[in-house]
This record gives sequence, C-alpha cells and structure tokens, in this order.
Amino acid sequence: MATSGALKKKTVDKQSAEDARVHVPNPHLEKMKDDILYHFALGTSTHDFPALFGDIKFVCVGGSPSRMKTFITYIAEQLDIGNPGYDYPNICAGTDRYAMYKAGPVLSVSHGMGIPSIAIMLHELIKLLYHSKCCNVTIIRIGTSGGIGLTPGSVVITKQAVDATFKPQFEQIILGKSVIRGTCLDENLAEDLMECAKELDEFNTVIGNTMCTLDFYEGQARLDGAICMYTEEEKLQYLKEAHKAGVRNIEMESSVFAAMCNVSGLKGAVVCVTLLNRLEGDQISTPHDVLKEYQTRPQKLVGHLIKKCLGKK
Amino acid sequence: MATSGALKKKTVDKQSAEDARVHVPNPHLEKMKDDILYHFALGTSTHDFPALFGDIKFVCVGGSPSRMKTFITYIAEQLDIGNPGYDYPNICAGTDRYAMYKAGPVLSVSHGMGIPSIAIMLHELIKLLYHSKCCNVTIIRIGTSGGIGLTPGSVVITKQAVDATFKPQFEQIILGKSVIRGTCLDENLAEDLMECAKELDEFNTVIGNTMCTLDFYEGQARLDGAICMYTEEEKLQYLKEAHKAGVRNIEMESSVFAAMCNVSGLKGAVVCVTLLNRLEGDQISTPHDVLKEYQTRPQKLVGHLIKKCLGKK
Repeated sequence: MATSGALKKKTVDKQSAEDARVHVPNPHLEKMKDDILYHFALGTSTHDFPALFGDIKFVCVGGSPSRMKTFITYIAEQLDIGNPGYDYPNICAGTDRYAMYKAGPVLSVSHGMGIPSIAIMLHELIKLLYHSKCCNVTIIRIGTSGGIGLTPGSVVITKQAVDATFKPQFEQIILGKSVIRGTCLDENLAEDLMECAKELDEFNTVIGNTMCTLDFYEGQARLDGAICMYTEEEKLQYLKEAHKAGVRNIEMESSVFAAMCNVSGLKGAVVCVTLLNRLEGDQISTPHDVLKEYQTRPQKLVGHLIKKCLGKK
Repeated sequence: MATSGALKKKTVDKQSAEDARVHVPNPHLEKMKDDILYHFALGTSTHDFPALFGDIKFVCVGGSPSRMKTFITYIAEQLDIGNPGYDYPNICAGTDRYAMYKAGPVLSVSHGMGIPSIAIMLHELIKLLYHSKCCNVTIIRIGTSGGIGLTPGSVVITKQAVDATFKPQFEQIILGKSVIRGTCLDENLAEDLMECAKELDEFNTVIGNTMCTLDFYEGQARLDGAICMYTEEEKLQYLKEAHKAGVRNIEMESSVFAAMCNVSGLKGAVVCVTLLNRLEGDQISTPHDVLKEYQTRPQKLVGHLIKKCLGKK
C-alpha cells in the first residue's frame, strides 16, 4: 500500500477521530428517541449498536444473500478470525429483506438487485454505522456485471458510475423534483485495489467506468427480454458508444452507491466481475461452476486488500 | 362476480385461446434456440415449461420470499389442493434472487424491492408463461405500502400507478432514450377485488391511486433516512399534494408492473396493505404481530377472488 494507502492505520487524536466518524446529513435524526431500521429488523432501543458494530472498519455489500455469507466465511479464514467451519448467524434473521454477517471488523450485507433495493439498505447501513459510532469505515460493493469488450471473468474496478447516457451522475427524485448527485468513487481506494490485483495476478483486472441502469433487459439493450422493440444493430451501436465513453461494464447499483458514499463521506469502491461480453451476446449461458468461480474473484481481490489494510499481510 | 367477471371461465374456441395467450412483444425470441431465465435458474432446454407451468391461471407476486411461501400454503388450503401441512418446494432453488412456489393453477413468486428488481422478475415470468403456452392469466401484486390519510391496516386496490409527480406513467430508459409507458390497471379486475372486499367485510378497503417511487426514504419524503435535506413542513406539503391527486398509498413496484402488464397484455392488479399513515409519521413502529396480521389482508382478499373465479365459492 505504501503512500497511497488511504486505508492505512494511523494514530488519531480525538478531533480527527471525530472527523473520521460516519456522518448522516439529516438534522431530524437527532430529535428521534429511537430509530428502527425496519428492513434490517434492528433498532436502537432493542439493540446495543456500539457494542454490536462499533469495531467495524470494512463493509462489503453484494446482491445475493448466499454470496455474502460465503464471503464472511472466506474473509474470516483469511483474517484468521474465529473457528474454521463456524456457521455465521444472519444478524438480520428477523426479516428476509436483507442478510447481514459479521466477522471481526468486517460486515457483509446483501442488497438485492437494483438502485432502490441497495438504496434502502445503504440508508439503514449508514445509520447503523452512525449509531454505532464507527470511524474510518471503507465500503466496497462486490458484484456481478455484464462486460463490454472484456474477456468474461475479467474484474472491473469502477472509476465513475455513469448513467444510461454515460454521464457520471445519479438523478434522485425528492419531493417530486430532480436532484443530481455526483458518482465518482475514491481514487486512492481504486488504485489500492488495482495494486492488489497486480499482486494477486490471477485474473484480468481493469479500472473503468461502470454504467448503472434501472433495468436488466431493455435498459441494458438486451435482445432476450419479454419486451424488445429495437434491432440488433441498434443494440450494438449503443453498446459501442458506451465503450467509447469509457464504460467497461454494466450493472444496476453503482450510481446510487457512489452518490450515497459521497453525500455521507464514506470511502467507497465497486468491484464487479463480468459474467459475459455483451458485444458477443445477452444470455448468461456459461456453465454454473465457471460462473461460481468468476464470482469468487471480487471476493479474493477485496479480501487481499482488507488483509493488507489490517496488517495481516 | 356476475357480469363484470373479466376472469370468469368460459368455453373458448381455438382462435380465442390463441388470443388469450400471453404474448411477448419481442421478435428476437423466436430466433433463439434455447432461453435461459437466468434469475429463475430455469431454462427451456433443461425444463419442460408447458408440463411444469401450462395450467397456470393466477400469478401472485410480492416482495418477500417468505411471504410468498406463506401465500402458496394459504391458497392451497383455500382451494383444497394437496395435503395440509405440505412443504411447497422453491422452484427457483438454484438461485437466491427470487423464490417461486406453485399450487395447482396458482404461481407465487417473490420480486424483491423496487422497480428494477420486479422488472427483471416480470421479464422472466412473462417469458415463462409464454414458453409454457399459458392462456387467460391474471397477475396480482400483493404487497405492503405506506398509506396517506388511511387508518393503518387499510388495503388499497390500485386504480392507476403514478410517478413522484403524480402522473400515471412509467419512464423507461431504452438505448439511452426516454420511453413513456401507461400505468393504468385493469378496471374490471379492480372492481371484482372491491366486490370481494365487501363480501369479506374484514378490513377497510379502497380503490385509489398508488404512488410508485425509486427510493423509500428521500423518494417518499421521509425524515428518518441517513440523508434528509428538507423540512417537516415541506414533507407534509408534498404528501398532502399527493393525497389531493388521488394518491392513497406509496410503494416501489406498481408503475413498472402496470406498464409491463399493459405491453404484454396481461390482466393485472395491485393490492397493498398500508403499514402506517404517512401523514402521522415515518417509522414503522407497529408491533411485529400486528404488522404480520396486516400482511395477511391482501392475501385474504386475493385468495377470495381466486376461489370465486375458480368456482370454489
């Protein structure tokens, strides 16, 4: 990590610890006696947040609950925490909206699919970190995506999340009016991840722009949805324009993730494996075991980074 | 149901059976040899769709996988299908993106939270019904929502799904360009459901507009998210404007549901219980067992309709 290490441990005095706390830009929260994080089935009057979560330094999030359980087992092994084979309990067992697991300083949370689903989770997660008085937290999305012009299995570290017109912005509708937020991600963290990829040297990894869409089929120019009213030529033209704009992969959560990291001052990264090359097709027909191996790649990369940051490597 | 009965069984000749088939407005599908429904972990080359799903007449969808499992057990009991206590297997066991259960002519599918998540599911569901050669299918979303000006526990049958500016439309971005689709739902079906509510006479039920948002916190004018940059007065003004525009509840899936029903010719309805009155607060602090009872209400209403339509009542 050397000098770029935005994550490296340092001695902090009280003032800078205060600065490094997760902050919530919401003056109304202070007036609330209790706070129920409804979609986590957790609440400040029923759970001791600082005791449960105060030591968190890394939060990894991904769409699938089972993948996030696999990740917590993997990272615990890597960090040599707990007993091998330990069955990590789901902290959000009171609901089936999200799944959450914790091993030492690492929290692993599922977020479902799409911007609204991850946004609900992030609102409640940021409040969880705030109520827990967490400091210096890094959050990384480890996901799957469609690649543009990359060999399937390649990993993309997101530089900017861009919308369907390739602009690095996220449009949020608040009180019926459009609010635009920036979607750049932490540059140092992306570089640190790229350095980890070089050290691992196990799979192709690039830094590039990630297009974030509200739909998997028509929104990503697929020809294989239930509805499709454009031609193959129009599809390819659109994807090639995206590539020219620096887009290397397409997924469905990065823009609101980046926007919310920016607004709440969290250091964030998005690391997604590409399951297919969209210039060559739409269907995900790769054998199940190959796809499964692909999905371990962001986990390996992020695991390597966390080990380094915690001085375990 | 009498004469309004858009769902009533009738003898159909071959031509009208053809008309009543689920159609997919996508000319590319015919050229595909196989079709992998990736997020269901089902495919036409690995599963016999007409044999598995050809008899489906009702599809009920909802956010939570466990709620959709509860529903299939409930409807099977109501229709007197299968053995009491039977543990219905998850047809999508090969993935944890969605859960799917079937009892006789009823399919029950989870869709996660938000427009993108339900849209992926609907694309694959509509293709599933098409490949299975299903006819005369009715699809109903049974969900939870925030009410406006209604006693908590009231049920809203959606007339129109409206966006955050109260317009009955859904904006979809295709190839980077905006496409507007209509979001009216089947009027006869809504009336049939209202008739069922009157027959049941167990809880307050209204027909009204449903506002569909892309976010649960800022998007629904809540004061209790991680981010909030407006005042309580601005919040209340917005919700009161919504009420004036005929909005009786707010949720996160109805607009794309209605739009996709319209484009693919499926008869659709949205039936949501209201968990709270948003004019009185934001937090869902009602005791767990009360919320659980609320969530059975759309199930009871839709169960009653299905029984009537299948001539079991």
